[in-house]
Amino acid sequence: MRLRRTLRVGLVGHGFMGKAHSNAWRQAPRFFQLPADVVLRTICGRNARALKKSATQFGWKKYATDWRAVVNDPEIDIIDITTPNDSHCEIALAAAAAGKAILCEKPLALNVTEAQRMTDAVRKARVVNMVCHNYRRLPALALAREMIAEGALGDRLFHYRARYAQDWIADPDFPLVWRLRSDTAGSGSLGDIGSHIIDLGRYLVGEFREVCALSETFVKRRRLAGHRKRRARVTVDDAVSVLGRFRNGALASLEATRFALGRRNGLTIEINGSGGSLVFDLEQLNRLQFYNMCDPEKGRGFRDIIVTESAHPYVGHWWPPGHLIGYEHSFVHTIADFVRAVAGQKNVAPNFADGLANQQVLAAIAESAQSKRWVRL
Amino acid sequence: MRLRRTLRVGLVGHGFMGKAHSNAWRQAPRFFQLPADVVLRTICGRNARALKKSATQFGWKKYATDWRAVVNDPEIDIIDITTPNDSHCEIALAAAAAGKAILCEKPLALNVTEAQRMTDAVRKARVVNMVCHNYRRLPALALAREMIAEGALGDRLFHYRARYAQDWIADPDFPLVWRLRSDTAGSGSLGDIGSHIIDLGRYLVGEFREVCALSETFVKRRRLAGHRKRRARVTVDDAVSVLGRFRNGALASLEATRFALGRRNGLTIEINGSGGSLVFDLEQLNRLQFYNMCDPEKGRGFRDIIVTESAHPYVGHWWPPGHLIGYEHSFVHTIADFVRAVAGQKNVAPNFADGLANQQVLAAIAESAQSKRWVRL
Amino acid sequence: MRLRRTLRVGLVGHGFMGKAHSNAWRQAPRFFQLPADVVLRTICGRNARALKKSATQFGWKKYATDWRAVVNDPEIDIIDITTPNDSHCEIALAAAAAGKAILCEKPLALNVTEAQRMTDAVRKARVVNMVCHNYRRLPALALAREMIAEGALGDRLFHYRARYAQDWIADPDFPLVWRLRSDTAGSGSLGDIGSHIIDLGRYLVGEFREVCALSETFVKRRRLAGHRKRRARVTVDDAVSVLGRFRNGALASLEATRFALGRRNGLTIEINGSGGSLVFDLEQLNRLQFYNMCDPEKGRGFRDIIVTESAHPYVGHWWPPGHLIGYEHSFVHTIADFVRAVAGQKNVAPNFADGLANQQVLAAIAESAQSKRWVRL
Amino acid sequence: MRLRRTLRVGLVGHGFMGKAHSNAWRQAPRFFQLPADVVLRTICGRNARALKKSATQFGWKKYATDWRAVVNDPEIDIIDITTPNDSHCEIALAAAAAGKAILCEKPLALNVTEAQRMTDAVRKARVVNMVCHNYRRLPALALAREMIAEGALGDRLFHYRARYAQDWIADPDFPLVWRLRSDTAGSGSLGDIGSHIIDLGRYLVGEFREVCALSETFVKRRRLAGHRKRRARVTVDDAVSVLGRFRNGALASLEATRFALGRRNGLTIEINGSGGSLVFDLEQLNRLQFYNMCDPEKGRGFRDIIVTESAHPYVGHWWPPGHLIGYEHSFVHTIADFVRAVAGQKNVAPNFADGLANQQVLAAIAESAQSKRWVRL
Repeated sequence: MRLRRTLRVGLVGHGFMGKAHSNAWRQAPRFFQLPADVVLRTICGRNARALKKSATQFGWKKYATDWRAVVNDPEIDIIDITTPNDSHCEIALAAAAAGKAILCEKPLALNVTEAQRMTDAVRKARVVNMVCHNYRRLPALALAREMIAEGALGDRLFHYRARYAQDWIADPDFPLVWRLRSDTAGSGSLGDIGSHIIDLGRYLVGEFREVCALSETFVKRRRLAGHRKRRARVTVDDAVSVLGRFRNGALASLEATRFALGRRNGLTIEINGSGGSLVFDLEQLNRLQFYNMCDPEKGRGFRDIIVTESAHPYVGHWWPPGHLIGYEHSFVHTIADFVRAVAGQKNVAPNFADGLANQQVLAAIAESAQSKRWVRL
Repeated sequence: MRLRRTLRVGLVGHGFMGKAHSNAWRQAPRFFQLPADVVLRTICGRNARALKKSATQFGWKKYATDWRAVVNDPEIDIIDITTPNDSHCEIALAAAAAGKAILCEKPLALNVTEAQRMTDAVRKARVVNMVCHNYRRLPALALAREMIAEGALGDRLFHYRARYAQDWIADPDFPLVWRLRSDTAGSGSLGDIGSHIIDLGRYLVGEFREVCALSETFVKRRRLAGHRKRRARVTVDDAVSVLGRFRNGALASLEATRFALGRRNGLTIEINGSGGSLVFDLEQLNRLQFYNMCDPEKGRGFRDIIVTESAHPYVGHWWPPGHLIGYEHSFVHTIADFVRAVAGQKNVAPNFADGLANQQVLAAIAESAQSKRWVRL
Repeated sequence: MRLRRTLRVGLVGHGFMGKAHSNAWRQAPRFFQLPADVVLRTICGRNARALKKSATQFGWKKYATDWRAVVNDPEIDIIDITTPNDSHCEIALAAAAAGKAILCEKPLALNVTEAQRMTDAVRKARVVNMVCHNYRRLPALALAREMIAEGALGDRLFHYRARYAQDWIADPDFPLVWRLRSDTAGSGSLGDIGSHIIDLGRYLVGEFREVCALSETFVKRRRLAGHRKRRARVTVDDAVSVLGRFRNGALASLEATRFALGRRNGLTIEINGSGGSLVFDLEQLNRLQFYNMCDPEKGRGFRDIIVTESAHPYVGHWWPPGHLIGYEHSFVHTIADFVRAVAGQKNVAPNFADGLANQQVLAAIAESAQSKRWVRL
Repeated sequence: MRLRRTLRVGLVGHGFMGKAHSNAWRQAPRFFQLPADVVLRTICGRNARALKKSATQFGWKKYATDWRAVVNDPEIDIIDITTPNDSHCEIALAAAAAGKAILCEKPLALNVTEAQRMTDAVRKARVVNMVCHNYRRLPALALAREMIAEGALGDRLFHYRARYAQDWIADPDFPLVWRLRSDTAGSGSLGDIGSHIIDLGRYLVGEFREVCALSETFVKRRRLAGHRKRRARVTVDDAVSVLGRFRNGALASLEATRFALGRRNGLTIEINGSGGSLVFDLEQLNRLQFYNMCDPEKGRGFRDIIVTESAHPYVGHWWPPGHLIGYEHSFVHTIADFVRAVAGQKNVAPNFADGLANQQVLAAIAESAQSKRWVRL
């Protein structure tokens, strides 16, 4: 008789993403039949006081302020990285060296060099690795992928149009947080939210061939966080727009911005193919619009599919049809699949190689915005 | 060789409906291939000064203040009645006696007795007659009828839910216009807008078998139009709600109100059958939502059909697909069909008998609201 | 120093609602600062095998097949009842006698007599009691209540229009489950989903004064669950429509149906007042539409409020603005408030008295549908 | 006493645009108080048989096959050009030379050189001139302009995002009509529909400073119209995507495509400023979405303004609030304003200089797509 394995998790970071991942680690075993038990072993952060509170609140057995100790703890099987982007590489390299399975928040790294090192490290260490592009596992987007694979959009894709629009820094008085500094964040809207629509482009359409971009920092200087008056330069982009082509000939039109008032978390996608179109909006995340040329002419129109049926990906594990799920469920699905991969020592997508490919597109976009030229991938 | 006939129209009334009908008389021959020429001969009203202006503005050759003269004018073939409800009967009886084809605004009459007399009169005179329930000829609703007839909703209808909500008298300072007095209007929201959803119920679902209603006058007294302070009692309903059953077993849930702020002209319909559902909203009049149980489970959802295709009723006469039409086009379609009927001496629906049936439902509803009992039709 | 209390929960029932409540008990302490610790002590059901699985899956320490033992277990502080409606009364009476705080699924009981006994029992026992009308604690509906209280709809409400439409038994081959039998469910769509819109009417508008109803069983006989051919009579309503008046003069138009194809879990509400209107749709549960007469004429329109701001009720405990929550979060909010009430020995709404009031409306509706007369409350 | 002037119109072209303009010439005087009478004098085309039919159908007194005769007819005051793009210049030059007021369909010309000559000619001849960018006079877009001018979006604009998507040639079997040949159309989606969103960008945001574009012809060869098998090369773009900057610092993201299935006539615009956002969709042309940062935090959301109030531009001339208008009304409004300009010998926008500016942007886009470089304006 085979023993059921227990996977013990060490989570680095306890901010917004730490909270979302903690929830997912707790919830995944409650809604999915996982092949291993999951233990929320240790949560790690720098501020001991706040961390202790997070540990209790989020349901972790222990907390620790030294990530190296966590990474090297033999009682830990999985390292989950949710810290700011500038520490992903170092932590991941150490975790790979320690033979841990690794889940890492997006974007994978600060730049291509780091991403390459990380990808090499997990390959060499043969550890299961995954980048947390959670939106792939929203039921509506997983359904979109299924439908495209099944030919619902025809044999040819023409357009991939994706926009990730937020508005949280449109106010010029918003302070200079870490996400607005290139040393900690790598880039601005590009890496933070642009990386999502690049990942979804690769997931739904294919590999990018070339890009041409424009980027802008609308508010050039901001006050330092915690200061009333001291101001410093914003060193990342507020918005970036991209034209591109995929290898399969489809055109890409991308945009990431934090200056679109009213778009609180507005990720919209439209894909047009020779047989139909799909439309998605993150602010209506349980829905997928589908236009099907096969419908009779008199009755054609975008279908508003509420993606809550048992026939739909992931969502049948939750509630009966018509009962909506939320944002955080995408993390639960991600972690359920990750646990399965770790338990079975199998590959899972998107992995670090995908994170690297994403980073290459990010770099090409940044280079194009800088040089005002097309950049080939 | 057959001579092409010319139909000369006399229009009684030059308010909102007079304007809408004038437009339809002018436009119908421009967009439809009609079997007869149409001449806007005489427009008739009480205020000569205003009328003269209307005649010029709306494109009528002559104007007259005596409707009897118009009705008996041998140079006129068609009488179009758009006056307040209390004059429909008298004018229609005279027009029938004079052998004119008659188009009459809804509701057909003040009450069932009048409606019966009018129906008898046109039958006896064998003149072509029509009630202007223009919404039947909105392409989306004509398509709904077609689809139901073709079985798109299955072999059984369960629910007809219709609501006509406006808000133009929600302000208690709005004056006591003719539509708020039972002597001129017969009833309030019931006859004015409720008659539309009754007509559409008969058009789309079938005959009513029984009704039970509640009506309310929220603002009991209003200032007289043209007065600052003098007030009088409102003698019609502000809102009416109705439960009912159709002869075919479907349930009806109806509501007419002028007290729904934000609903400027909000007629919404939902029909549920054993094979699917249809949804319509007059404030999006070029669209029809269709849920089709025959769609594969994974891809089911309300389809948002933009009803502007050449395969759709009426609309192909206007612009290419995707180019919207407006409210007044429903009148143009109505008059195009009426002209064809007159030219061919054929019946056309909804005719006065339909107007009578409608009035019977209105009367049953009013009686039920009064007696607080179910009333059988 | 005051000791932090631990509240130990016994959950009776482990079906759909058992799963939703289990989740809420686990999640509430993770997202809300609760004044007591919560322990998922014992889950109770009749089928030991299935129950054991549920206990593990849902996170309960123990399981038991005898609800009386659970109710009388001194190690348990709270009894949570999620069984079919016919057992609510007996369990609640025993729990009250044992001095437990009680959370009970809606509808409170099979009938008014039971509901009255339950209400008397909890009053006498002075135990904290609550009915789980979870939708009150959807952020959008809690916001609606706040806005109405603050006068956003003006000083007078005209219309409360609520419809709860589903389609899961529209297929005549769907079997005769417990929800379709009056002995186990009390009523059909009326008690199951109609009770929700009655509760929301009481929550948002006020007390009902009189009702008039129609009910229908479209499919009269169904095969027994687990049988291929044996059929029996459906003894509950498939659909019910209601006209009503509130004590404050507002009109009610209600409908509950399980025969509206495409409406998977379609609860829609519209409230019209003298200062504006509110619209809600459960299939878009993070949103609330608000029409405000105070907006300047040129810029008036229904505002599509995404109810995910920290200024909105409950939702700030979850994720940043624009990140949606799902159906189950309404239970988490309910249980968070219930825990606070139990910890503080305070009242919480809706309590059993509200459940009784709801049951009285249900009974009046059933009586009216039966007698075809208006029934006063 | 001043004599009322009569303006006699000669219309060149009787296709789709000829039909739309004819309607507008007929309707404008019926709904607007114009300072001059309008006579539909002569319609001009090449096919006498079809033209005769059009003349009758569209309401023209005469028809003529020689446009030079029409242009030089002393009985004609206004020349309205709706022919394919390759004839605009020649006709307009002749009309200017003959001293006629000129209304010309967009795009103004085949290229900048022609547009410049036309602009010079009307300036020299001092004739009233206008390009028919009809969408400026949709009430929703005219309202958008008003609101931006009044500061509703704040003191700074960040993003202008516009997409004109159609699908009428997505089918590879669609024939090679004149719009798909560069010799007759100049360009493809770029000039035909892209010119509209460029015009609206200039109308709503300001002048363009630089652009970078990508264009694609998805279907390279098509069968000749009227032939079954003979095929030839498509010499225009099927789709074009553009990044750009306005002089005021706003970013532009534009797209024109004829390959977006389900988008029958889908022009969507979103503008984000420091104080709010506006959203428009031509397939819902009576609506304008407005997000206002000045709304209280709890009640912020996109307002769905139904642009049918008397306080809104143009639309009060038609029907009461809530009664929708259609696509063709934009032409009626254009011609009403044009007639006023001609009667008063006043300037009107957009005039030929605007058409020239538009053509310069079109040329820059085409050049950029060709050279794969940014092009400055």
